Amino acid sequence: MRALILAAGLGSRFRSEKAKVLHTIMNKPVIWYVYQTIKELNMQDIAIVVGHQAEEVRKIFEGEENLFFFYQKNPKGGTADALISAIDFWRDYQDYILVINGDAPLVKSQTIKNMQRYIHLVEEYENIKLSALILSSFLPDPTGYGRVVKDNQGNVIKIVEEKDASFEEKQIKEINGGVYLFYSPHLLSVIFSVKPSPASGELYLTEAINLMSQRGYIVRSFMAEEQAEVMGVNNRWELAIAENVIRLRILERLAKDGNTIHQPETVWIEPDVILEGNVEIEPGVAIMGNSRLGKGVRVGRGSIIQNSILEEGVVVEPYSIVRDSYVKSKAVVGPFAHIRNQSVIGEESHMGNFVEVKASHIGKRVNAKHLAYIGDANIGDRTNVGAGVVFANYDGKRKYQSYVGENVFIGSNSLIIAPIQLGNYSYIAGGSVINENIEEGALAISRAKLRILKDKGKEKLT
Amino acid sequence: MRALILAAGLGSRFRSEKAKVLHTIMNKPVIWYVYQTIKELNMQDIAIVVGHQAEEVRKIFEGEENLFFFYQKNPKGGTADALISAIDFWRDYQDYILVINGDAPLVKSQTIKNMQRYIHLVEEYENIKLSALILSSFLPDPTGYGRVVKDNQGNVIKIVEEKDASFEEKQIKEINGGVYLFYSPHLLSVIFSVKPSPASGELYLTEAINLMSQRGYIVRSFMAEEQAEVMGVNNRWELAIAENVIRLRILERLAKDGNTIHQPETVWIEPDVILEGNVEIEPGVAIMGNSRLGKGVRVGRGSIIQNSILEEGVVVEPYSIVRDSYVKSKAVVGPFAHIRNQSVIGEESHMGNFVEVKASHIGKRVNAKHLAYIGDANIGDRTNVGAGVVFANYDGKRKYQSYVGENVFIGSNSLIIAPIQLGNYSYIAGGSVINENIEEGALAISRAKLRILKDKGKEKLT
Amino acid sequence: MRALILAAGLGSRFRSEKAKVLHTIMNKPVIWYVYQTIKELNMQDIAIVVGHQAEEVRKIFEGEENLFFFYQKNPKGGTADALISAIDFWRDYQDYILVINGDAPLVKSQTIKNMQRYIHLVEEYENIKLSALILSSFLPDPTGYGRVVKDNQGNVIKIVEEKDASFEEKQIKEINGGVYLFYSPHLLSVIFSVKPSPASGELYLTEAINLMSQRGYIVRSFMAEEQAEVMGVNNRWELAIAENVIRLRILERLAKDGNTIHQPETVWIEPDVILEGNVEIEPGVAIMGNSRLGKGVRVGRGSIIQNSILEEGVVVEPYSIVRDSYVKSKAVVGPFAHIRNQSVIGEESHMGNFVEVKASHIGKRVNAKHLAYIGDANIGDRTNVGAGVVFANYDGKRKYQSYVGENVFIGSNSLIIAPIQLGNYSYIAGGSVINENIEEGALAISRAKLRILKDKGKEKLT
Repeated sequence: MRALILAAGLGSRFRSEKAKVLHTIMNKPVIWYVYQTIKELNMQDIAIVVGHQAEEVRKIFEGEENLFFFYQKNPKGGTADALISAIDFWRDYQDYILVINGDAPLVKSQTIKNMQRYIHLVEEYENIKLSALILSSFLPDPTGYGRVVKDNQGNVIKIVEEKDASFEEKQIKEINGGVYLFYSPHLLSVIFSVKPSPASGELYLTEAINLMSQRGYIVRSFMAEEQAEVMGVNNRWELAIAENVIRLRILERLAKDGNTIHQPETVWIEPDVILEGNVEIEPGVAIMGNSRLGKGVRVGRGSIIQNSILEEGVVVEPYSIVRDSYVKSKAVVGPFAHIRNQSVIGEESHMGNFVEVKASHIGKRVNAKHLAYIGDANIGDRTNVGAGVVFANYDGKRKYQSYVGENVFIGSNSLIIAPIQLGNYSYIAGGSVINENIEEGALAISRAKLRILKDKGKEKLT
Repeated sequence: MRALILAAGLGSRFRSEKAKVLHTIMNKPVIWYVYQTIKELNMQDIAIVVGHQAEEVRKIFEGEENLFFFYQKNPKGGTADALISAIDFWRDYQDYILVINGDAPLVKSQTIKNMQRYIHLVEEYENIKLSALILSSFLPDPTGYGRVVKDNQGNVIKIVEEKDASFEEKQIKEINGGVYLFYSPHLLSVIFSVKPSPASGELYLTEAINLMSQRGYIVRSFMAEEQAEVMGVNNRWELAIAENVIRLRILERLAKDGNTIHQPETVWIEPDVILEGNVEIEPGVAIMGNSRLGKGVRVGRGSIIQNSILEEGVVVEPYSIVRDSYVKSKAVVGPFAHIRNQSVIGEESHMGNFVEVKASHIGKRVNAKHLAYIGDANIGDRTNVGAGVVFANYDGKRKYQSYVGENVFIGSNSLIIAPIQLGNYSYIAGGSVINENIEEGALAISRAKLRILKDKGKEKLT
Repeated sequence: MRALILAAGLGSRFRSEKAKVLHTIMNKPVIWYVYQTIKELNMQDIAIVVGHQAEEVRKIFEGEENLFFFYQKNPKGGTADALISAIDFWRDYQDYILVINGDAPLVKSQTIKNMQRYIHLVEEYENIKLSALILSSFLPDPTGYGRVVKDNQGNVIKIVEEKDASFEEKQIKEINGGVYLFYSPHLLSVIFSVKPSPASGELYLTEAINLMSQRGYIVRSFMAEEQAEVMGVNNRWELAIAENVIRLRILERLAKDGNTIHQPETVWIEPDVILEGNVEIEPGVAIMGNSRLGKGVRVGRGSIIQNSILEEGVVVEPYSIVRDSYVKSKAVVGPFAHIRNQSVIGEESHMGNFVEVKASHIGKRVNAKHLAYIGDANIGDRTNVGAGVVFANYDGKRKYQSYVGENVFIGSNSLIIAPIQLGNYSYIAGGSVINENIEEGALAISRAKLRILKDKGKEKLT
């Protein structure tokens, strides 16, 4: 089978310069979901009709194989015009072609499989060749949708848009879901007869359905398993609702795979994330991009993990951010920590409260538990970074690296001025400013003499 | 038309000393929503019957025109007694008066317009003068609500409270929504005949309806578009539910206006907030008070914006707070930053991780990216504030200002003791304590001599 | 009455080494909720059938009285086998025994009371001794549940599992809720006749029901008030849904008791928490463990309170964490503060932005508003802790205590090296390192001479 995705439209109700199918759901373009659904069906060939922002749409699919693009000159030409634009894709095809709107991200591949199966069953048992099968759904309030009008045999006569519907037709609750399986030769025999809509001047694919029925071709409808599947995404409120549906589907899958998720309404996990089992996700957490969380990882309330790997047993305390980094087994991050820019946190290390680690490599069992900035640093195993310590990696012009050995003690409120090296077992007294390399085992201290002026304190305060 | 809001009651099920209508929804009093709904209808005059905490209720509406207050001596006198208290407002009025409970924040102005239109249609086409029109709704479970009892013609005979309802009446699913349009002269003819409820001693407005029907006046009911509209707010759980309804209405409006909102369940945007388009709101965000966000602003997960202006292209990284401040175009705030007390952040500046800015004016392209406290400071363009820098604005008795020029470099962990001035292009070495003015272009450093004691570090550590 | 909880199973669909009933809802084991429900019924005796992870299950109930444990040798023996394992508990009992699955945390005690009452009414008015009463519910989609099959009189004939159900039986929407009241003598007469399921080899309790009906005993079903009550918890997605139901029940109770809760979907309050009235809970808040919040406390967005007491009038600003601590009347915590390890914060004190307080005792009206680490310290009333101050409580080997008097001023970026004592009214100049005790009223300063090098700053920067 072949599949054709219609993605030329603008989506003016989005009030955006960006094409509708380029808006994102869980940080993936809307059309990406449609494409994923189709890929799961092992189609021979897939084509996308592009128009508005054609280049941006193509870019999403760079590197994909057996994918063709067709250009619709007039993005307002309508859905039948889109099919004509891609006529080379299906003109000579002697089988069914799937036509789906690029803004239908909620259709499930299983539903399309069921549609295919239905066509085969009808062929086998009723001895009828269906010319088209339309995905539909029954909505309690169908206002705004195209209605599926049928005859007594249950065959589709036509699809009528809300604005053209008679009073009786408006009572119909079965609506058109915008997903079609067409028998190509029959579609070809009607597609050039579609006339422009008097109202909009567009060529509608639903008009092709009507023509099919008029010529005696058999058209049927097939009910979607879930109402949400037929939901279009026509404005940004519907986009938010569709995002919720996809978000909850991801969470349900991950929970059933053996991960614990609290308050799913508040949790955000993107489609490519891998949870390896027994992961515990607290409320308000976001896990984004290509992240992988090992067995037994716990992510505390409100934390954000993006494009990062957290090995087995890592604990992320609440309100921490880990971006583009690697946290090794049993390390603890947070609360209120920020790990970023290709940092590595070693096994059983603890980066704690109000600590920022940028582009640094932290060894095993290193502690930096309070109020520290560690930037462009390499820190050896078992080193202790005190509260208020800053690695000064910038002098107003350039950035520099720091190298800290193993078992080093950096006292609180010290300033480590890069470029610098602190040897193993060196000891930096609290409050020092270190701008020379310190050799192994040495103690370094820079501290002004403490003067105590009797009674002068009370004078200042009273 | 005139409108009368009943707002004298206490709301004992709120278990609060504060009157029910003073409790807030999205930080506005419950009654504010009722008043907004009525204002949208361009009423000639509006009156509010106050009683419990009358002064506090009046204060909400300071400065409003064509608004009258009537005082109900006995806040437990009942709704009919409330109307009698305001008799001067409607005694001589020869048209319809809208009567609405002050705790009905979910009624839509469109619904009341539809009620008005219905009265006109009945007058025109049925040639009937309605004496009262009652907003109603059909509830699957009507337990606890007053039921609307009708005759065969569909006219209302009476409204019966749950506790007085017969078995048959309890089966009625149409309930009284507490919003009425009364033809004043007819109401006047019955209002003084209302007898106290045997149970509570209160004079109920529903009893006036019953009397109207008994005297042959025609009373009808009108179904609300949304079930939520008739929801009262009788305890704080219902208050939470009503807040959710209003919150989602605001978000739906903003999304349809072309802003992207993720996980609407978790987002809080108050009624007066302005989003200028293409604003992106991540989950868990709160935007409060009189805030205005320019085109393309992005507000990261969990951030709080209150009474602030964010110009075009501003990015607020996760878990930041901006209160009573002004952030200029393309500036970046956060993550974990706190901007407050009339601060101004200049174009393209970045106030980052664990940085607090209080009552300060920050120029363009200023960086303060880590662990800093900037209080009562004025900072010129392109200045760099290092990690761990503190502006000491308080000496135990008074607060002082700091003035920092342009292109200044303030090294990490420095302490800037106000009052002070740092000239343009001055350079503060890391770890310095600055308590004198520094002239333009100078380098300032206060640093104790660094002593290095061989092997002493390892001794302390082992 | 006696009650028997079945808790021997593994729950393989949880994909966990931990038994299903040990997984938690709001940080309490699933079985804890079942036990609470039963305790509210004032049962004479309660027994639990344990099997998989028997010891861990028993540990939950340490110290409970009138509670017995029975061991099911084969945790896959089935529910009837579980009853046989506990035969000593009910063999000689001449009354009704409640049998409930340990994974049914949503059943309400009121529902079980209603079931008891129903049995009495049937006995009194119909003169029928019920042999069993089954809790059931009508589900729109009953797929996967056991169906309750009845005769014309409304008596239960049998319960049929999904996989054994005929086409007609699958149409039944009444499903078995897994909660039973059995008349013990009648149950005893059939329990040993239950035959293993051909499919699984298990002995099912539902088979006992079928046998009862075959022998002419009268079995009835009783509809649960809420559909959720009959929901099992068979995988971690159902666990998440059950957690939501229980979470919202707790919030509804607290709101009706006179506390204000915003966006309940985002709020987490555990079962043992006490809110004393007029507490205001902002969105995203978590209150955990044995916490108690006094009248008028306000907890800001996203804050976490765990095992802590907050006295009357305390304000917790957004994104703060209070763990195992005591915050006294009218103190302010946050935003972005972390109070932990048995800390005490005195009346009207303010621990603010990026401040961490660990195992410290803070007096009244103490301010530490910005970027400070206070560890192992005792701080007297009215003391001011400047921004960037660190209490260095660790020297690489041991931890030490600090003692700070009243009315002390600790200037910003100072380092207080423990063990140490600062007398009342002592004054620490900003940027000092203090490693000697300071006597009352003294001023202490350690500060290197400030050198200013003309034009050298600009040279470094350009």
